[in-house]
Amino acid sequence: MFPKLIRMKYMPLFLFQIVLMMLFFVFTTYGGDTNHDQRGYEDTHVMIFIGFGFLMTFLKKYCYSALGFNWFLAALVVQWALLNQSFYSMKNNTIEITKKHLLEADIMSATVLITFGALLGYASGLQLLFIAIIETVVGCFNFWLVEHIFKAADVGGSIAIHAFGAYFGLGASLALNFKKKTVPSEGAPTVNLNGASYVSDVTAMIGSIFLWIYWPSFNSALTNSNMAYQRAVINTYLSLAAATVTTFAWSAAFCKEKGKFDMVHIQNSTLAGGVAVGSVCNMFIGPGGAIAIGIGSGIISVLGYTYVTPALEKIGIRDTCGVNNLHGMPAVFSGILSAGVAASATLQVYGTDLHGIFEAIAVDGSGRTAGEQGLYQFLALVSTIVVSSVGGVITGFIVRAPFFGQLKQNEEYDDEPNWELPGAH
Amino acid sequence: MFPKLIRMKYMPLFLFQIVLMMLFFVFTTYGGDTNHDQRGYEDTHVMIFIGFGFLMTFLKKYCYSALGFNWFLAALVVQWALLNQSFYSMKNNTIEITKKHLLEADIMSATVLITFGALLGYASGLQLLFIAIIETVVGCFNFWLVEHIFKAADVGGSIAIHAFGAYFGLGASLALNFKKKTVPSEGAPTVNLNGASYVSDVTAMIGSIFLWIYWPSFNSALTNSNMAYQRAVINTYLSLAAATVTTFAWSAAFCKEKGKFDMVHIQNSTLAGGVAVGSVCNMFIGPGGAIAIGIGSGIISVLGYTYVTPALEKIGIRDTCGVNNLHGMPAVFSGILSAGVAASATLQVYGTDLHGIFEAIAVDGSGRTAGEQGLYQFLALVSTIVVSSVGGVITGFIVRAPFFGQLKQNEEYDDEPNWELPGAH
Amino acid sequence: MFPKLIRMKYMPLFLFQIVLMMLFFVFTTYGGDTNHDQRGYEDTHVMIFIGFGFLMTFLKKYCYSALGFNWFLAALVVQWALLNQSFYSMKNNTIEITKKHLLEADIMSATVLITFGALLGYASGLQLLFIAIIETVVGCFNFWLVEHIFKAADVGGSIAIHAFGAYFGLGASLALNFKKKTVPSEGAPTVNLNGASYVSDVTAMIGSIFLWIYWPSFNSALTNSNMAYQRAVINTYLSLAAATVTTFAWSAAFCKEKGKFDMVHIQNSTLAGGVAVGSVCNMFIGPGGAIAIGIGSGIISVLGYTYVTPALEKIGIRDTCGVNNLHGMPAVFSGILSAGVAASATLQVYGTDLHGIFEAIAVDGSGRTAGEQGLYQFLALVSTIVVSSVGGVITGFIVRAPFFGQLKQNEEYDDEPNWELPGAH
Repeated sequence: MFPKLIRMKYMPLFLFQIVLMMLFFVFTTYGGDTNHDQRGYEDTHVMIFIGFGFLMTFLKKYCYSALGFNWFLAALVVQWALLNQSFYSMKNNTIEITKKHLLEADIMSATVLITFGALLGYASGLQLLFIAIIETVVGCFNFWLVEHIFKAADVGGSIAIHAFGAYFGLGASLALNFKKKTVPSEGAPTVNLNGASYVSDVTAMIGSIFLWIYWPSFNSALTNSNMAYQRAVINTYLSLAAATVTTFAWSAAFCKEKGKFDMVHIQNSTLAGGVAVGSVCNMFIGPGGAIAIGIGSGIISVLGYTYVTPALEKIGIRDTCGVNNLHGMPAVFSGILSAGVAASATLQVYGTDLHGIFEAIAVDGSGRTAGEQGLYQFLALVSTIVVSSVGGVITGFIVRAPFFGQLKQNEEYDDEPNWELPGAH
Repeated sequence: MFPKLIRMKYMPLFLFQIVLMMLFFVFTTYGGDTNHDQRGYEDTHVMIFIGFGFLMTFLKKYCYSALGFNWFLAALVVQWALLNQSFYSMKNNTIEITKKHLLEADIMSATVLITFGALLGYASGLQLLFIAIIETVVGCFNFWLVEHIFKAADVGGSIAIHAFGAYFGLGASLALNFKKKTVPSEGAPTVNLNGASYVSDVTAMIGSIFLWIYWPSFNSALTNSNMAYQRAVINTYLSLAAATVTTFAWSAAFCKEKGKFDMVHIQNSTLAGGVAVGSVCNMFIGPGGAIAIGIGSGIISVLGYTYVTPALEKIGIRDTCGVNNLHGMPAVFSGILSAGVAASATLQVYGTDLHGIFEAIAVDGSGRTAGEQGLYQFLALVSTIVVSSVGGVITGFIVRAPFFGQLKQNEEYDDEPNWELPGAH
Repeated sequence: MFPKLIRMKYMPLFLFQIVLMMLFFVFTTYGGDTNHDQRGYEDTHVMIFIGFGFLMTFLKKYCYSALGFNWFLAALVVQWALLNQSFYSMKNNTIEITKKHLLEADIMSATVLITFGALLGYASGLQLLFIAIIETVVGCFNFWLVEHIFKAADVGGSIAIHAFGAYFGLGASLALNFKKKTVPSEGAPTVNLNGASYVSDVTAMIGSIFLWIYWPSFNSALTNSNMAYQRAVINTYLSLAAATVTTFAWSAAFCKEKGKFDMVHIQNSTLAGGVAVGSVCNMFIGPGGAIAIGIGSGIISVLGYTYVTPALEKIGIRDTCGVNNLHGMPAVFSGILSAGVAASATLQVYGTDLHGIFEAIAVDGSGRTAGEQGLYQFLALVSTIVVSSVGGVITGFIVRAPFFGQLKQNEEYDDEPNWELPGAH
């Protein structure tokens, strides 16, 4: 980029914003009359902008970027997702926007922010924003596959949001780090900024705890009966509580120092209970079952940070926030659980909620059998992992083009390249 | 003030609290039966106390004062506003208090907190509190003018809250800084505390993002049909998202350093979309129109910080938070938009919402014409700017009296004069 | 504890989590159909995990522990409370869980977190967790006494939650500090970590303000008519606002330095208005009465920090957060008020709400008289204080057993013994 043009480097995004405006003028209108409020919208909104944003402030010198890019990405993606996710159900070339669509756009932006977590600190701003635009298209397509082709039950989005976002991110990470030259730093040795400070770990807790608090609202927002809503809230609450207790006990057991807690576990593995229960939270898993899922997810996540993240790093997949441990593996766990729970669903237990939860199972027995539904749940999971990881790898290679301004090694995990920083601090 | 009496310096406010208690005993009672909950109340409450409070913690050594005075002012003003705003509609000398009134008192306190943003760091505690008491009286009177005399549509309060608060603040700033003697510091050179630290910019983001998140709730809280509510939420959401993308792109273009973001823009101009859409958010501006307004407001706000704030400072108007760029100019933009949108409103498009939004336009055509309504919108805006800026100047001159303890130059932007500070940090 | 086993020190809690899972499998099921949402749940959830957690980050080197143990304790207690609090009303050995039960479990966890506030920084992790498990059993029993035996009106839980938690904590503090040997530190002099830093006081404000904001939701969540709900919100809002103004004015008057605010008062005494109005907030105290209660509680609380906390410390009761001033004394005030207000309740004023608020007073006059109800309110308060303080003392002595790993003096108020800390900060 020419020095004089560097101020203009984000102007392509502004042009994209102008295009979005024109698309909205042409294709959208306000939705018809709605007599009920969309529950879960405000709480989910907090999760996206405060939750994800502050969770990623744990890096000591990347707080501005974590908060800023989280905001920039999500503000762009929600607009773009409103169009993409309604593209497949447009009538008369018109998209009717309701508050429910805003909620769904927020949920879709979570996908991109999960991917951001994998790339945090070593992808440039332009790389992140281009990835976000592509990922939204692929993610909305995959969401449509899961919902309308596989007709999978996935009310909390563990398959279509969490698994998708995590494996798209790991795919992009593989591509971005593939045979990357590590330029040795000249002059003074580079300080490793890939770590927390005392204060940054505290601000990260703002994000972590708000995510934890509103997760029951997130998982239950798109349920379609009062009883299913209540089950989703209860199951998510219990799974999160059990994952939290488990995380603390196992963190002390697997820490480096004797019997101390590791903040990385506490900020992340505590949340795995929300992911792991996501696909099944509106089903009849029982309060005890929800707790069992929470315990399992806490163990998976802590062990993931201890063993899997270092192993991935060896094969060239950097995962700064450990999204594989918070979103990826717990989501796979949830997808497999959903196959099993669906396969054993009966009209006797589910009553009128049976068709509400499993759209393709008819109450009169004319649709899928429970076993078939279980198979489709599994296929939706496998399909999502394939689409997201392949999509991530391809997108990752595209953004290695010089235009996107790949960071030098000494610019990583640092706000300095992107922000005017206060002098003394 | 005599040294021994200095501990008593806030006791006049306690006496005012006692007077408030007596007025409540005499004039208030609980409101009648209400079958619905008041939506938007809790979210607005977060905006006032967390949003405004933390947004103003961006100054490195004024965090306690920002949070403390925000809280002190708002807690006083909500009580005082409950009385003032119902003064004009009292029956039998009794004010019936409902949850809706609490919401309206919170909204009125926003006016005072916007003014506080202009005076942040250089007005003393007693000055701020006295200004708050006067401003509440004038602000409630102006609110009554806008709503009941001009009958202007202003559901998000851009005219009666944002423009009023900003120009009252600039007026007070002009008066406070008029021919002020700048005493040169003796001994060691004064450190300039009018700036951020790395941590204070992060805590400011808590406020900024919470304001952003709940702005759709704020703008839509006082709508009076389900469809108007939904439009207000959608329009505010889209305007904010577009303002955010615009702010990031333009901040990089207009920053001091090459292509970097300026935290002042990110914390503030992102929110201008909420202000600019405020007066028109329940109208049929279309989703594309909402995005256009957001884009415009982001540009206005970033350019305001770059060019207008330094120009105002030269003529003696200090605006610490840049409330003119976040609240003032975007609110004027919103008021002018509301005149245009109102003037083109038709029964065909608005249906039963026409009278709900424009109280003075009757569905049977007996009231104002759309063009007349547009004129009244404009008059409400002009009147508000005149009342607020004149009120601000007068109040500003009053609080220059010695009793209010004007700060010395080396006490500015510093918590030290007001707080017991921890020793080592 | 053997060095090799120290990693396993929290595994007993994991075993307890496994036991909880089994109890949930055996005893619980989803509750029946509910047509309404449980109001106040999400807001209360924020208070418990963000509010209490961040309020206790005021200590400069105990932020991780404050947030971590708050989370660990509450996640454990909510599960345990769900069983304990329904134990007395079980039918067919089955507990039906609804969203309302989740709210009540959150409320019960407040009790334990108040106790945590008294012991903050000098009780070990295992001590805190064991105390939490015992306190939940005793607290749920006491709650049942207050609600079903004394049939006391206590909608905001001032008696059963705030007084209980505070005096259980002071009891445990007495036991933990009784004839404790203070080992003089060897080598370098110990730094006193029992104090705030500039940043930790700011993060504490996150907790304080969120508690303040959502307190009206907390106090009103369990009301059982629309009018009672609205009164509870209005009274709590006004009491908090008045307590806040009072706290600022009196803090400046009673501070150590001339006319400055003390952050300890601002973070805590502002909230006393929510406690003091808790037991009576759904009653006809009038808006003026609510303000009077707020003023009174602010004064009690500031004077408590100034005079009572040092006096308690002299007799061996350490109260790190001053829970006696925020929860204890204001709750006693509320309990006494509730006796007086109940004794003067009449059918004429209360109408159909009379029986709704005072379960034991029948509308046809066949139940208790108002005077009798007042007596029972008082007895509920006295009984709670006795049960909690005796329970606290006994539990405190139990956790002095070596197994619970009492902290050495130089480990107090320090995250170091419990957390892997970042190197440079």
